[in-house]
Amino acid sequence: MLELTANQWNTIYNVFSFGLISMLACTVYTLVSQSRVLPKYRNALVLSSMVTFIAGYHYWRIFNSFSESSDGYMVATTGAGSFNEGYRYVDWLLTVPLLLVEVVAVLALAKAASSSLITRLVPASAAMIALGYPGEISADDGTKILWGVLSTIPFLYILYVLFVELGKSLDRQPAGVAATIGRLRLLLIATWGVYPISYLFPLLGITGTDAFMYRQIGYTVADVLAKCVFGLTIYKIAKMKSAAEGMSEDK
Amino acid sequence: MLELTANQWNTIYNVFSFGLISMLACTVYTLVSQSRVLPKYRNALVLSSMVTFIAGYHYWRIFNSFSESSDGYMVATTGAGSFNEGYRYVDWLLTVPLLLVEVVAVLALAKAASSSLITRLVPASAAMIALGYPGEISADDGTKILWGVLSTIPFLYILYVLFVELGKSLDRQPAGVAATIGRLRLLLIATWGVYPISYLFPLLGITGTDAFMYRQIGYTVADVLAKCVFGLTIYKIAKMKSAAEGMSEDK
Repeated sequence: MLELTANQWNTIYNVFSFGLISMLACTVYTLVSQSRVLPKYRNALVLSSMVTFIAGYHYWRIFNSFSESSDGYMVATTGAGSFNEGYRYVDWLLTVPLLLVEVVAVLALAKAASSSLITRLVPASAAMIALGYPGEISADDGTKILWGVLSTIPFLYILYVLFVELGKSLDRQPAGVAATIGRLRLLLIATWGVYPISYLFPLLGITGTDAFMYRQIGYTVADVLAKCVFGLTIYKIAKMKSAAEGMSEDK
Repeated sequence: MLELTANQWNTIYNVFSFGLISMLACTVYTLVSQSRVLPKYRNALVLSSMVTFIAGYHYWRIFNSFSESSDGYMVATTGAGSFNEGYRYVDWLLTVPLLLVEVVAVLALAKAASSSLITRLVPASAAMIALGYPGEISADDGTKILWGVLSTIPFLYILYVLFVELGKSLDRQPAGVAATIGRLRLLLIATWGVYPISYLFPLLGITGTDAFMYRQIGYTVADVLAKCVFGLTIYKIAKMKSAAEGMSEDK
């Protein structure tokens, strides 16, 4: 049981609602904007819609779970009917691989190059999330550290693929695109940094109601940055590339 | 606890329902009308759809919250399960920056000019809303005044950008467009005036059930004007500009 103050409870509640509607609005925006980029970049936009759609579903579930597991401002965190953080892992297991495919899709590389990137990024990202889960649900420090370290191995491999392998294909992109992709990669890494920090909170002795509130805010803000702002940047890249390839909006 | 009369309670309930369906209808209207303007103006229409979609979601939540926090005509305004006005701030935090981007988008200025306006209007409007929140939730007059004044600083900056900076680019717009943009700007300022007035109600000693009802009506009417009527005006401007650039509806 976590006994939150009224302000803590209301802040978490409103932050979840903010996450939910941000994801839904972004889903619709990227879906209806498809015709404004060349057909070969539309798959990247649809993937972005799917990422925010999946995340919107999970925020709806998390919002309801928080509400239903509360009795006044007391939140049940263990036992039947307790607040379910498992939704976050299900969400990441689906959305993190899709986000990486999104980056590769918007580059519209040659088929062989993009297959090679995807077959390495997707399993690595799924492994990263799956290996984090046993540590997240364990109360034992040793177990947490073990699975945390195991999960870091695919994470480092993803960094290698994104910065070294994918970096090689940026030279052939139109002006401005390479710089935007560079910022996109930094956005991904910066926001992913929030997850292991929250994971380590219990190990560092940061527990209690404030830690719970800041973890929920941190996760939500990171999700909005890594999915909505990320998706809008993908859209911007797709538009830049479409314009560079002669698509005009004057007709 | 606010003990409303049957008339007060029913009026608020119906006003929320009016806000909700106005937002949803406007969302659909601007979404399906995209093809009637030139592609370069469609983003302004989609942004308008997103604004009313986000607002529709929040009116749905506000409507439910009002209903669920009521016991007969008694509305709980403090404590667990009380009427949540926080939705309004979450809504404004997302929609006010989007509304300003919408105005810039419909002007279809040169890339550098529109980036420069957006990078100033978006952070200023987010700061304006975020700085208002601590004052809104505080019961202390001094705190309310402090945050109210802080929130006014970005507001004045936005006025400066809209009236001075944006004014400069209106000369190059087709006949009729500059006048409509002028009216749009006045609509924005006039409706935004409702929010600080409601904010000041408790300071002026205007409390009780009538004040509560007029505040909810004022917010809702201001939201419908600032989002629906605003969005329809954006659509009108986009059509005028499309026609001026040779788009014909005769075929």
